[in-house]
Amino acid sequence: MTNTPAGAPVTVIGLGPMGQALAGAFLKAGHPTTVWNRSADKAAALVEQGAVLAPTAAEAIAASPLVVVCVIDYGVVHTILGPETAALKGRTLVNLTADSPEKARESAEWAAGNGFDYLDGAIMTPTVTIGGPGAVVLYSGPESVHQAHQPTLAALGGTGAYLGADHGRAAAHDVALLDIFWTAVAGIAHAFALAKAENIAAKDLEPFAQGIIGLLPGLTTNHAEQVDAGDYPGHISSITSAAAGMEHIIHASEDRGIDAGVLKAAKATALRAIEEGHGADGFARLTEVLGRPSA
Amino acid sequence: MTNTPAGAPVTVIGLGPMGQALAGAFLKAGHPTTVWNRSADKAAALVEQGAVLAPTAAEAIAASPLVVVCVIDYGVVHTILGPETAALKGRTLVNLTADSPEKARESAEWAAGNGFDYLDGAIMTPTVTIGGPGAVVLYSGPESVHQAHQPTLAALGGTGAYLGADHGRAAAHDVALLDIFWTAVAGIAHAFALAKAENIAAKDLEPFAQGIIGLLPGLTTNHAEQVDAGDYPGHISSITSAAAGMEHIIHASEDRGIDAGVLKAAKATALRAIEEGHGADGFARLTEVLGRPSA
Repeated sequence: MTNTPAGAPVTVIGLGPMGQALAGAFLKAGHPTTVWNRSADKAAALVEQGAVLAPTAAEAIAASPLVVVCVIDYGVVHTILGPETAALKGRTLVNLTADSPEKARESAEWAAGNGFDYLDGAIMTPTVTIGGPGAVVLYSGPESVHQAHQPTLAALGGTGAYLGADHGRAAAHDVALLDIFWTAVAGIAHAFALAKAENIAAKDLEPFAQGIIGLLPGLTTNHAEQVDAGDYPGHISSITSAAAGMEHIIHASEDRGIDAGVLKAAKATALRAIEEGHGADGFARLTEVLGRPSA
Repeated sequence: MTNTPAGAPVTVIGLGPMGQALAGAFLKAGHPTTVWNRSADKAAALVEQGAVLAPTAAEAIAASPLVVVCVIDYGVVHTILGPETAALKGRTLVNLTADSPEKARESAEWAAGNGFDYLDGAIMTPTVTIGGPGAVVLYSGPESVHQAHQPTLAALGGTGAYLGADHGRAAAHDVALLDIFWTAVAGIAHAFALAKAENIAAKDLEPFAQGIIGLLPGLTTNHAEQVDAGDYPGHISSITSAAAGMEHIIHASEDRGIDAGVLKAAKATALRAIEEGHGADGFARLTEVLGRPSA
């Protein structure tokens, strides 16, 4: 394996919004960039910026020692690259497609069985961040492979964190972090609906919503410490009082004809903790409760 | 109605953790503070700080023109204060107990019918913030009543926001803001459980979790603007792609025996939006979808 200097050629397969952002960042950093997509028209803007559009996936792969793929899911990765293992042999594939830890590990076995290096990655920030300081891209797989290509991957910007040799580790972080993201966003969408039903304009709720969101970083730090310590003090706020608070919101929502399924499910977990005798503990206990089968 | 200068007497009824914090803040700001609680022992620390413990609720009320009550819910407010309307007559009651907008409005009618002024309030920050710059307390009810007592209420610290004459408005903000809070916290608890099932220590996930939480303020600003404009552009992230992302997390959770009820409910709302033809819209569309009956 040779070191990949800055300016090394790179191939990007998959030109959805994220793939286009990745290829654009490689181009801006001075890497000869070859691209391929099932619908070739997605490459037009990149070709104007200097990318080479390969006529086939095999020719795109042959153009670079490093191939980055970012498509909708691993099914599509294997539809596109499954027939191209001969072309991939001896190269490195970095799969930035989002999917499960299991599929990441299966893909690593497929790569090993076909003689090419493989890193699995997860992109944690929106397309607009790619190439800038705010980008966060997680990688897992053999450390030597990551080190060899880190100078090229650095073009994607921000934080490129190497998480370890287990190929599933980036995807495991991805699902856990998107769990926070989508659950919180569902709560935000619901809260603005509840406010609107009370004739509170979104712009009037927004500054107070920012205040609530501002409580989450400190709470998350405490939550993590309590989970690792296995100790869940409830003197500031208990699961029992949280369940009562959730019940107010459920009631207020349903009174206004607004579905409250999300908080009802959250409350069900709180009730399980209370039934198991943990009502006086802090909310971080719910991580422990969720992590094992019902009593 | 007379203006209440700084140093004006104030009575606090209910000495749970929040009531104690409120009374402590009034004392520190130099207000002669009378307290009462059903279990008198909760007053001990405050009496050491200079509070006067009244032997009965009626005597506590009689000690001050301004009475602040903070107990577990409005049922308890009325159990304690229902028999004391004669004592309350001509005074101002500020009810900082958390409950629904409906109950706030009912309490305002009860106050009006019994000849005393009434403000309904909601405390949006934890007990430790009270009296300091980080406190957020919302008030609604007649503006003149709020103005008269604002110099005393300022002792509670931070932002004391007056939201309007509708007595239910503070409670309406309260339920919407706690909706964001408890939903997000449920997501955080769940994410750490999912990470733990993949042998990711909470301290290792935590810095990346902070990165995800750091996306929420900007997203909330955009969400609010889109809700007020009734326009939900989906070019950065669509409801359809969000639903696919949620499905990955649901699948990863259930594979590990972790209940995924919260995200399943969130996904059900996304699917409703998709069925109604809004799949290509951005996630803020879900506020509009939740706000009206199913098609």
